Amino acid sequence: MKLSELAELTSATIESGSPDTEISAAAGLDLAGNGEITFLANPKYTPQIRDTKASAIFLNEGVEIDRTDIAVLRTKDAYVAYTRALRAFHPFSIAVPGIHPSAVIDPTADVSPEAEIGANVVIGPRSHVSAGVKIHPNVTLYEGVTIGEGSILHSGVSVRENCEIGRNCIIHNSSTIGSDGFGYAKDEEKRWLKIPQVGRVVLEDDVEIGANTAIDCASVGETRIKRGAKIDNLVQIGHSCTVDEDALICSQTGLAGSSVIGKRVILAGQVGIAGHLSVGDDAVLTAKSATSHDVEPGKVISGIPGFDNKDWLRSTAAFRRLADLQKKIRELEKAVENLSEGI
Amino acid sequence: MKLSELAELTSATIESGSPDTEISAAAGLDLAGNGEITFLANPKYTPQIRDTKASAIFLNEGVEIDRTDIAVLRTKDAYVAYTRALRAFHPFSIAVPGIHPSAVIDPTADVSPEAEIGANVVIGPRSHVSAGVKIHPNVTLYEGVTIGEGSILHSGVSVRENCEIGRNCIIHNSSTIGSDGFGYAKDEEKRWLKIPQVGRVVLEDDVEIGANTAIDCASVGETRIKRGAKIDNLVQIGHSCTVDEDALICSQTGLAGSSVIGKRVILAGQVGIAGHLSVGDDAVLTAKSATSHDVEPGKVISGIPGFDNKDWLRSTAAFRRLADLQKKIRELEKAVENLSEGI
Amino acid sequence: MKLSELAELTSATIESGSPDTEISAAAGLDLAGNGEITFLANPKYTPQIRDTKASAIFLNEGVEIDRTDIAVLRTKDAYVAYTRALRAFHPFSIAVPGIHPSAVIDPTADVSPEAEIGANVVIGPRSHVSAGVKIHPNVTLYEGVTIGEGSILHSGVSVRENCEIGRNCIIHNSSTIGSDGFGYAKDEEKRWLKIPQVGRVVLEDDVEIGANTAIDCASVGETRIKRGAKIDNLVQIGHSCTVDEDALICSQTGLAGSSVIGKRVILAGQVGIAGHLSVGDDAVLTAKSATSHDVEPGKVISGIPGFDNKDWLRSTAAFRRLADLQKKIRELEKAVENLSEGI
Repeated sequence: MKLSELAELTSATIESGSPDTEISAAAGLDLAGNGEITFLANPKYTPQIRDTKASAIFLNEGVEIDRTDIAVLRTKDAYVAYTRALRAFHPFSIAVPGIHPSAVIDPTADVSPEAEIGANVVIGPRSHVSAGVKIHPNVTLYEGVTIGEGSILHSGVSVRENCEIGRNCIIHNSSTIGSDGFGYAKDEEKRWLKIPQVGRVVLEDDVEIGANTAIDCASVGETRIKRGAKIDNLVQIGHSCTVDEDALICSQTGLAGSSVIGKRVILAGQVGIAGHLSVGDDAVLTAKSATSHDVEPGKVISGIPGFDNKDWLRSTAAFRRLADLQKKIRELEKAVENLSEGI
Repeated sequence: MKLSELAELTSATIESGSPDTEISAAAGLDLAGNGEITFLANPKYTPQIRDTKASAIFLNEGVEIDRTDIAVLRTKDAYVAYTRALRAFHPFSIAVPGIHPSAVIDPTADVSPEAEIGANVVIGPRSHVSAGVKIHPNVTLYEGVTIGEGSILHSGVSVRENCEIGRNCIIHNSSTIGSDGFGYAKDEEKRWLKIPQVGRVVLEDDVEIGANTAIDCASVGETRIKRGAKIDNLVQIGHSCTVDEDALICSQTGLAGSSVIGKRVILAGQVGIAGHLSVGDDAVLTAKSATSHDVEPGKVISGIPGFDNKDWLRSTAAFRRLADLQKKIRELEKAVENLSEGI
Repeated sequence: MKLSELAELTSATIESGSPDTEISAAAGLDLAGNGEITFLANPKYTPQIRDTKASAIFLNEGVEIDRTDIAVLRTKDAYVAYTRALRAFHPFSIAVPGIHPSAVIDPTADVSPEAEIGANVVIGPRSHVSAGVKIHPNVTLYEGVTIGEGSILHSGVSVRENCEIGRNCIIHNSSTIGSDGFGYAKDEEKRWLKIPQVGRVVLEDDVEIGANTAIDCASVGETRIKRGAKIDNLVQIGHSCTVDEDALICSQTGLAGSSVIGKRVILAGQVGIAGHLSVGDDAVLTAKSATSHDVEPGKVISGIPGFDNKDWLRSTAAFRRLADLQKKIRELEKAVENLSEGI
C-alpha cells in the first residue's frame, strides 16, 4: 500500500516522506521493520523512536521526533490511525460457506447456506444460524439458539438453550454462554434447593467475549450484554446482569447476579462487583478493586471495598508505613501521659 | 396450575384470593405478569409490590402488603416456596435414552441403555455410565470414569482418568474434573520436576459444578466434593482438597492443595484459601477475602489476610481516612514536642 | 522394586532396613501403606511419623525419627527423592501411534505416523504434529500450528492460528493457546475499534499449562512461555507477555499485556500483574498480591499494590487494630488539647 493510500484510509496528513513510499505492514516501535509503519501515542515510548526501523510513523498533533528518515503521518489520534492501518493490512477473515460433513445439525435447525460450519460442530433443535456466520470446530449450540449475521464462534464454545447472539459478535474459545445461574434456596434441612435457571442470555451486536469466560443465564428473564461491549478472558457474568453499550470488562473480573454495568464503564482486571447494584456510565474500577455499593457515573474507584481512587492512593501510601504509625501513637501516648503527670 | 394445587405443593396457606385462580408461571416481582405468582423475601424489594403485575404472591409470616388485588400465599419461607413453585413449572429435563451415532464409545465401556449420550461424545475404556445420565455433545470421559444415575454433563466437559461422579450431579460447560494437581519438586538444577498426579476426584451425590471450573485430582489419593456441595463458575479446587456437604463456593474462588472446607461453609466470590488448612463448619469468607490460617467453625472472615468480619468493617472504614490519620499523628507529634518544650 | 533399587534410582543411601525389602508404591505419610515408601520434608508433619503405615521413608540429612520398624533412606532432598520414586512407580503414559477414524485432519497437515490422535480431534491446514505427541479427544488445532515431540494435549484444548508448542509440553483440558489479545482503540464516537491480533503464542520445551487457562496471542509479534515454565489452572496471560524459564504461575493469576516475568519467578494464587512491566528473576509475589510497577530480582512482594513482604506483614498486623488506632488518635488529640489549655 502506498503511504498516500494509508493516509487517506486513516484520515491522516502526510507531513514528511514521499506519498509513493510502499508500506507493507504496521507494528509497534520495537517490532516495525523497514517498509513498515508504526505509531507513537504514549510519551513513555518516545525513547524507542531512536532505534525503530520503521519507515513511517503516525504522530499526534504537536508531537515531534528527532528522526528525519521516517515519514510522518499527522493525525488526531495516532493509536486509532495505527489500528485502522493494522486492520487494512489484516482484514478479518470471512466465512467460507459450507457445512463440514462431520457436523451434526438437528433437522429442525435453520442454518444459512452462507454460513461456515466447522468439523464436529453440533447444532441443536430449532436453532438459527445466519449468513456470514463462522463456527469453528467442536462448538455446541443447544436448542433454540440464534446466531446473528457475521458472528464468529471459536472452537470449544457452548451456547446454551434459547440464547441469542447478535450480529458481528466474536466469542473466543471454550467460553460458555448461558450456563445456569448460581441460585439456591436453603430448605428446611439446611440443604441447597436448586432454583431453576430457565432464562437466557442475549448478546447484542458487536459484542466480543474472550476465551474461557462464563456468562450465566437468568433464572427467569435474561442476562443482556449490549451493543459494542467487550469482555475479556476468564470473566464471570452472573445471572440477570446487564452490561451496557461499549462497556469494557477485563480479564478475571466477576459480576454477581442482577447488577447493571453502565455505558462505557471500564472494569479492570480481577475486579469484583457484588449483586443487585448499579455501576453508573463511564465509571472506572481499577484492577483488583471491588464494590458492594452502587457507583456513581464517572467515578474512579479503587480498593476492597472500593472508594475514590485518589483517596485510595493516599491511603495505600500511608498503609505502607502503618506499623510505624502504630509505633508513633504508642510513643505519643507515653509522651502525653508523662506530660499529664508533669514528668 | 390452580392456586390451591400450588399452595399444597409449596406447603403454603391461601390467605386471600380464590383457590381456583389459574397460575401459569413464577417470576420475581419485576418480571411476573398477569396469571403468575411472585414472592417477597427481602424487605428491600417491598417498593416493587406497588408495580408488580403478579396475580399471587408468597409472603413470609408477619409480612403484609398494600395490594388487595393479589392473592396471598402465606408460608414459613417465601423464597423456598417460590423455588418449589418454579421447580413445578420447570421440571428438570429427563434423559431421552439413546446413543448418538457420532459418539465414540470404547468397547470396554459400560453405558446404560437408559442413558442419553449426545453427538461427538467420547467415552474411554472401562468407563461406566449409569441409567438416567444425560451427556451433552462434545464431552470427553477418559478411562475408568464412573457417572452415577441421573447426572447431567454439559457440552465441553472433561472427566479425567478414574474420576467418579455421584448421582444427580450437574456439571456445566467446559469444566474439568480431574486435571493434574500443580505439584513440582525443585531439582538440583533449580528446575521443576513434575510430581505424578495419579489420584482421582470424587463428586458425591447432588453436587453441582459451574462452567469453566477446574477440579484437580490428588497426586496420590483423592480430591473429594461431598454430598450437596455447590460450586460456581471459574472456581479452582486444588489437589487433595475436601469440600464437605452443602458447602457453597462462589465464582472465581480458589483453593490451593490439601485444604478441608467444612459443612455448609460459604466462600463468596473471588476468595482464596491457602494450602493445607481447615475451614470449620458454617464458616463464611466474604467476597475477595483470603486466609492462610485455619478458620474456626461459624466464623465470618473478611480481608487479606482474613480476620473477623466486624473488626474488618471497622478497619476498612478507618482505612479510608488513613492519610488524614497520618497527618493528625504528625500534628500531634509537633504539639507534644511543643508542650514538652514548654512552648 | 527392591529398596536397594529405589535407593540407587533416587541417589539415596540405605541407613536402616533390608536392601531386599519390596516396595510397591510411594505416598504421603498419611496415605502410605505397608510395603510402601513415604517421605518427611516439612517438620510440620513429624507427628504423622507415629501413625504412618509406610515400610520405608526418605529423610533429609540430620533428621531422625522415633520409629525403628521403618527403613530409612537418607538423601539430600527427601521431597525430590520421593518425587523420583513416585515417577518410577507411575511412568508417564506414552503415545500409542495412530489416528482415530473420527479425527478430522486437513489434507495439508503433516501428522507424524508416530503421533496418537484421539477421537473427534480436528487438525487444521498446514499444521505439523511431531512424533510421540498425544492429542486427546475433542482437541482443535487451527491452521499453521506446530506441536513438538512428546507433547500431550488434553481434551477440549484449542490451539489457535500459527501457535507453536515445543517438546514435552503438557496442556490440560479446555485451555486456550492463542486467543485474541484484549486490544481496542477508542474511536471518534467513543466506541471500541478492535485492534487485529495477528501474532502468535510460542511455548518452548517442557512447559506445562493447567486446565481452563487462556494465553493470548500478540497483536503483532509473539507471546512467549519459555523452557520449563509451569502455569496452573484458570490463569490469564495477556498478549505479548514473556514468561521466562522455570517461572511458576499459580492458579487464577492474571498478567495484563506486554509484561515480562523473569526466570524462576513465583506468582502465587490470584496474583495480578499490570501491563508493560517487568518482574525480575527469582522474585516472588505472594497470593492475591498485585503490582503495577516493576519488581526487582529476588524481591518478595505482597499486598495491593504490592510492597516488601516483611513490611506488608507488619502493616496488615496493624490494620487489624486500625479502628482502635483511630480512637487512640482522637483521645490523644483531646488530651493534647487539654494539656495545651492547661486543664
